[in-house]
Amino acid sequence: MSAEAPDVFVHPHALNESRNIGDGTRLWAFVHVMDGAKVGRFCNLGEHVFIERGARVADRVTIKNQVSVWDGVTIEDDAFIGPGVIFTNDRYPRSPRMPAAHDRYAHPENWLESTRVGRGATIGAGAIILCGLSIGAHAMIGAGSLVSRDAPPHAWIVGRPGRIVGWACLCGRKLSESFACPVCGRRYEKSDDGLCLAGDAG
Amino acid sequence: MSAEAPDVFVHPHALNESRNIGDGTRLWAFVHVMDGAKVGRFCNLGEHVFIERGARVADRVTIKNQVSVWDGVTIEDDAFIGPGVIFTNDRYPRSPRMPAAHDRYAHPENWLESTRVGRGATIGAGAIILCGLSIGAHAMIGAGSLVSRDAPPHAWIVGRPGRIVGWACLCGRKLSESFACPVCGRRYEKSDDGLCLAGDAG
Amino acid sequence: MSAEAPDVFVHPHALNESRNIGDGTRLWAFVHVMDGAKVGRFCNLGEHVFIERGARVADRVTIKNQVSVWDGVTIEDDAFIGPGVIFTNDRYPRSPRMPAAHDRYAHPENWLESTRVGRGATIGAGAIILCGLSIGAHAMIGAGSLVSRDAPPHAWIVGRPGRIVGWACLCGRKLSESFACPVCGRRYEKSDDGLCLAGDAG
Repeated sequence: MSAEAPDVFVHPHALNESRNIGDGTRLWAFVHVMDGAKVGRFCNLGEHVFIERGARVADRVTIKNQVSVWDGVTIEDDAFIGPGVIFTNDRYPRSPRMPAAHDRYAHPENWLESTRVGRGATIGAGAIILCGLSIGAHAMIGAGSLVSRDAPPHAWIVGRPGRIVGWACLCGRKLSESFACPVCGRRYEKSDDGLCLAGDAG
Repeated sequence: MSAEAPDVFVHPHALNESRNIGDGTRLWAFVHVMDGAKVGRFCNLGEHVFIERGARVADRVTIKNQVSVWDGVTIEDDAFIGPGVIFTNDRYPRSPRMPAAHDRYAHPENWLESTRVGRGATIGAGAIILCGLSIGAHAMIGAGSLVSRDAPPHAWIVGRPGRIVGWACLCGRKLSESFACPVCGRRYEKSDDGLCLAGDAG
Repeated sequence: MSAEAPDVFVHPHALNESRNIGDGTRLWAFVHVMDGAKVGRFCNLGEHVFIERGARVADRVTIKNQVSVWDGVTIEDDAFIGPGVIFTNDRYPRSPRMPAAHDRYAHPENWLESTRVGRGATIGAGAIILCGLSIGAHAMIGAGSLVSRDAPPHAWIVGRPGRIVGWACLCGRKLSESFACPVCGRRYEKSDDGLCLAGDAG
């Protein structure tokens, strides 16, 4: 309960059981980080956030209120997880306590599917992320979307199910048809799996 | 606050005021079960779950994080309630404190509508369940659906509003067109109000 | 922490840091009202509600469980905010901790957009309210809607994105085509920006 580094802020009404929280990270009221969970440096976990023991959160991640990050979910550096975003880790859930489901839930490999949120991506408020999929770096998932398949880097996705309706700049704005940002001026090129900054090797 | 049976686990950050919680049930952090609420045996109530005084939860039910179970909601044995599922109990809500609404809220029969979640049913993550309706046994409500009318037993429902797009096996998988499960092999037959196991009298 | 007026009820598991909470208001378990936030008289804040320091909540407002009211959100008298409603205050969010986003988040005027919920309006369960918009008095936003533009007074809005599908009476029921309420009998007239009570000057 008091294992965190001196530079971790744990609100008096939060509950931290992890020894793997990086410097500069803040846990606000009614947050619970379980033993075994890893949270990087300079993150901000909003109120009522829950981090399960097998979850992984990298550096400079912002998670707004009311988000549960389950076993199997990995969130990379600089991602933004909006309020009320819902992650999942089981495509075909039944109550594990139902006798007919005991065998399935006896081993995580029977049911646990992973989710990756790429570097700098945004998951908009109230979006639902199905499991077994990957959201590319700097993708922008619109508020209330239901993401049911992989999102390429920089994709702008809205709807239920979510569909690509454009491309997002690193800065968060929608790109023009020539992949230029009307706000910050960055330019992008098509790559095999989405977009990359023009002139960027990788 | 300490009325529960010896075999009920109440997390130190949870709040239990009910004397009707069954053996083997666990209440995790920031859960609140009100006085008068009934929760059966071997249930698991995830973090931030709220059980109002008139709610009824049967045995072996799993409720994931961030779910409020209101007066008028009944959850039968073996059901799974996903994270962030939203129940309701008023079709035409106004603030009960608004003077023009005082009369309506003076008597529960003026506004309170009930909801039933049948045995072994699954309510997927973030689904919204309108009130005055019944979800049949072993139905599978997809993540993010909006359920606005009764769901027959074993129905697989997705969308907003939710529509039947197939049929679900007891084990959680979608049945073939001949009502056989491609995973566990169970077979079903059409019944008056949905599906039932082949050869099953009721 | 103990600054509230004597007639404010603060549940022992709630956290109040504001000196601006009106008489008769109740804060239930796991609620947090920040210093600087203003909440009026005779409000009811359900469990897990969060009121940020710049938020404004007027009198007789009902906020059900699991709602975060952010800086920039104003809720007028007699409004009803359903369970799990999600407000936002940034149209293009990125993690403020991402180096490329530091400049944008250095000044609130770069990103903070306001939202107004008008007097007597209802936001249905699980609805998502984008920012920079206004919801008119007595509007009825259906459960699970995504509101992406202004709603006129008395508008009945459902869907994603939300669209006007009818008109709502003060009492919460849908009006007939002649703008009469089949339940309470009130009559309305078209006005420049929505509906108003027949014979009502304003």
